Amino acid sequence: MPASKTSSGHFFEDFRLGQTITHATPRTVTAGDVALYGALYGGRLAVQSSDAFAKRIGYPAAPVDDLLVFHIVFGKTVPDVSLNAVANLGYAGCRFLSPVYPGDTLTATSEIIGLKENSNRKTGIVYVRSAGFRQDGTRVLEYVRWVMVRKRDEAAPAPADHLPRLLVALEPNMLGDACPALDAAAYDVALAGSPNRWGDYAAGEKIDHVDGMTVEEAEHQIATRLYQNTARVHFNQFTEGQGRFGRRLVYGGHVISLARALSFNGLANAFHIAGINGGRHVAPLFAGNTVFAWSEVLATAELPGRRDVGALRLRTVATKDRPCGDFPLKAGDADDPAVILDLDYWVLVPR
Amino acid sequence: MPASKTSSGHFFEDFRLGQTITHATPRTVTAGDVALYGALYGGRLAVQSSDAFAKRIGYPAAPVDDLLVFHIVFGKTVPDVSLNAVANLGYAGCRFLSPVYPGDTLTATSEIIGLKENSNRKTGIVYVRSAGFRQDGTRVLEYVRWVMVRKRDEAAPAPADHLPRLLVALEPNMLGDACPALDAAAYDVALAGSPNRWGDYAAGEKIDHVDGMTVEEAEHQIATRLYQNTARVHFNQFTEGQGRFGRRLVYGGHVISLARALSFNGLANAFHIAGINGGRHVAPLFAGNTVFAWSEVLATAELPGRRDVGALRLRTVATKDRPCGDFPLKAGDADDPAVILDLDYWVLVPR
Amino acid sequence: MPASKTSSGHFFEDFRLGQTITHATPRTVTAGDVALYGALYGGRLAVQSSDAFAKRIGYPAAPVDDLLVFHIVFGKTVPDVSLNAVANLGYAGCRFLSPVYPGDTLTATSEIIGLKENSNRKTGIVYVRSAGFRQDGTRVLEYVRWVMVRKRDEAAPAPADHLPRLLVALEPNMLGDACPALDAAAYDVALAGSPNRWGDYAAGEKIDHVDGMTVEEAEHQIATRLYQNTARVHFNQFTEGQGRFGRRLVYGGHVISLARALSFNGLANAFHIAGINGGRHVAPLFAGNTVFAWSEVLATAELPGRRDVGALRLRTVATKDRPCGDFPLKAGDADDPAVILDLDYWVLVPR
Repeated sequence: MPASKTSSGHFFEDFRLGQTITHATPRTVTAGDVALYGALYGGRLAVQSSDAFAKRIGYPAAPVDDLLVFHIVFGKTVPDVSLNAVANLGYAGCRFLSPVYPGDTLTATSEIIGLKENSNRKTGIVYVRSAGFRQDGTRVLEYVRWVMVRKRDEAAPAPADHLPRLLVALEPNMLGDACPALDAAAYDVALAGSPNRWGDYAAGEKIDHVDGMTVEEAEHQIATRLYQNTARVHFNQFTEGQGRFGRRLVYGGHVISLARALSFNGLANAFHIAGINGGRHVAPLFAGNTVFAWSEVLATAELPGRRDVGALRLRTVATKDRPCGDFPLKAGDADDPAVILDLDYWVLVPR
Repeated sequence: MPASKTSSGHFFEDFRLGQTITHATPRTVTAGDVALYGALYGGRLAVQSSDAFAKRIGYPAAPVDDLLVFHIVFGKTVPDVSLNAVANLGYAGCRFLSPVYPGDTLTATSEIIGLKENSNRKTGIVYVRSAGFRQDGTRVLEYVRWVMVRKRDEAAPAPADHLPRLLVALEPNMLGDACPALDAAAYDVALAGSPNRWGDYAAGEKIDHVDGMTVEEAEHQIATRLYQNTARVHFNQFTEGQGRFGRRLVYGGHVISLARALSFNGLANAFHIAGINGGRHVAPLFAGNTVFAWSEVLATAELPGRRDVGALRLRTVATKDRPCGDFPLKAGDADDPAVILDLDYWVLVPR
Repeated sequence: MPASKTSSGHFFEDFRLGQTITHATPRTVTAGDVALYGALYGGRLAVQSSDAFAKRIGYPAAPVDDLLVFHIVFGKTVPDVSLNAVANLGYAGCRFLSPVYPGDTLTATSEIIGLKENSNRKTGIVYVRSAGFRQDGTRVLEYVRWVMVRKRDEAAPAPADHLPRLLVALEPNMLGDACPALDAAAYDVALAGSPNRWGDYAAGEKIDHVDGMTVEEAEHQIATRLYQNTARVHFNQFTEGQGRFGRRLVYGGHVISLARALSFNGLANAFHIAGINGGRHVAPLFAGNTVFAWSEVLATAELPGRRDVGALRLRTVATKDRPCGDFPLKAGDADDPAVILDLDYWVLVPR
């Protein structure tokens, strides 16, 4: 009888420091994916929505939304990295390195850059640097994430501990590779939906994005399958109904995309996510919840050698069933259980 | 501190007679949008469904469904015109002026053509002529709508009353600009699904479209986001749950598209909506309701100088949770609370 | 007054042996359809997902998923064949004959190859050979199905009984026409997601596909409309709520596509369905149920004259709300009411 054909994913003791994993499945991103992504979140950024607008400022065509690229690459890593994960612990150093256009095919790899067994010997933390590539080999995205992964066998010897050095935040000179040189004067703010350019934002400014979006089971399932993300907690009510929450968990990336779409109201010209410094999913989201969001400008920065665009470092916080007019946080004295996401990232805005 | 970045929309006293508003967001319509639109309503018109069929009769390719064009243009007007609307009061003079194909980019403008403060001084009626344009500046669609909009400040002085003259109905010579000259003999009625050409319909004829379609929350939300329509009543259960209906309202245009798709059974060759004379959403639709529809042929008309197609003026009535075999109406003695839509429009049918 | 425009479908006494029906609506399959199909089921086959991968092994582009082609052709036959069906009784001899790519337009015909009135004289069985065609007339798909159809009038004379001879199973020499000659060495098993090639499978091997997928009303409705399948039991809660099950039935083809997508875990290189020998929907599926699946390799076969790919004859069984680790069946002593699908088909796998 041949060996079992079904993959049960990797366990902690299966990973080796320095190991590189080639992930299935290569994926050509099409206008169909872009349309569906748009309809799932309702984004309204002019650059991603209009070929005509994108060409006028210097793109060859409307680029694929940064987060759609992220989710597709992330989805590929799930069967190899996090199928047996207990928790997704963090992200760091996520950079968008080259624009992706409909017709491009994406593949992904992950390098194991850190391993640390937990003291209970039942789990360990795996640090991976994942990267997405275009069909010509160009690196379009990279990020580090760390996850807590179960051991198959508690008694199995674990690899020696190795903790990688992680970036706390990307520096401005590490941003912008996925944004071609633009003609900022040709950027039509009326068509884009807001008069505010880079210079109109200041560090410390807080923006309530006002609107709320209720999530349905069909929506997050369709989205997560669009990314070919197979993590079972999102799809299997039979099993999850017997689990900790009694229901399916919404993919954390779905929350990020919802918050990003809501942030149009206040950040209509923040057309490109250049990098993600870090992010935490501080509480789970379920279907039926309504997502709200607010953002704070943590810093503004020029990009070395560029006069077309500037960067804003943003902290975007999303909540469930709680409007954000008073800027709630999951931290310290103001600890608010409605907060579900706390994301620290850089966006580019025309100058 | 910079000024607030979040838009709260325009209030009645913000509008000026003659003012023209350029709306965000330009949008390239793709094969992805067309596929999703099809899957949301299940339309089966051969012309929109098949490049081969469309080319055989004289189109360069399958045109984008008229109502998808309408919804995309309409969606753009929402943040500027109706974000603070109390009610969408009516439509008039909607004409489709040029066909739209996948790859075309749509933009929209609205001109304020009428203003009238209500006697309570809390609201006023705003009349706008909205238009959609292709990337080359060609006007593809125009329509008038009027909405009741809140005042920000009751004490604010209102502009002088001005009521525009509105068309009761489009004349046949105003129809057909979006339909190229066709080879009606090459129109294959077997492939199209019905033997009935223009000459087979007569004024006064009533058609029960028989089938019913149940609406789900995920469906109308995906549809309304596909149109980048941000009206909050469609998406935010947290807020709407505390409101008048206790739940999210389905976008009125979703009802129109459902009724149009249902009308295939009886009107399979009515391949093009040439214009909409007027329409009323006479009751709200909610997820879980099943939509039915029936139509009456109000008039038949030749188009001046054209032998390829003729026009039918139709009244299509949609209901919720009520089959339409006895042709219910929301009017007079037969007033039926199940009626949700009463639409008066012109379609073209091959001769 | 003109005759009724609404079609009520064909009844048993309307069919004639040898009759050929041309079905509406021709349909151009686009990248949009492909994206939506992917997001509805979450398939991860490299060949269908990536133009780059498909080209490397010898396809001109990523082909459209076989089952999407099947569902589109099947959907066209519904208004003419099964609108008045009591039950869909079986399939036989389904062969995929030519690959379909985005941009191709599909049409369908059905030939009546058998008729048999039931002894109650209220219904009869109609056997049809349906076929799908590309715009150039190439036959891309054919299959036989038989359905029990109501009579309009019990007293109507029925045609003479005629039972067609049906294939129990396709022979290996009848497979592979829709698969071009491939460079199996260029097939990258790491990218495809599994090391197992054709020679790694053996007759008798059973594979639990492990994962489960919960179905939502919006999902199966969107899918079934994507196929322009108008069978009313899938869409109309108002009517179905008063019927036998009290709710909408999920289209049987939706179950097949779910089982196919789940089978990736264990059959990642079974990239092409070459034919379907037969299939039975042994119990209905409803929204809220979670679908699981397992497969048995019934046989392995070489394709005459081909060294690039080999065939596996599979039996895939799907269940609702029941994991498949113990390989449940709807038959004999082990009769399991959770089984919903029992499908017998041939797949191709690289050698």
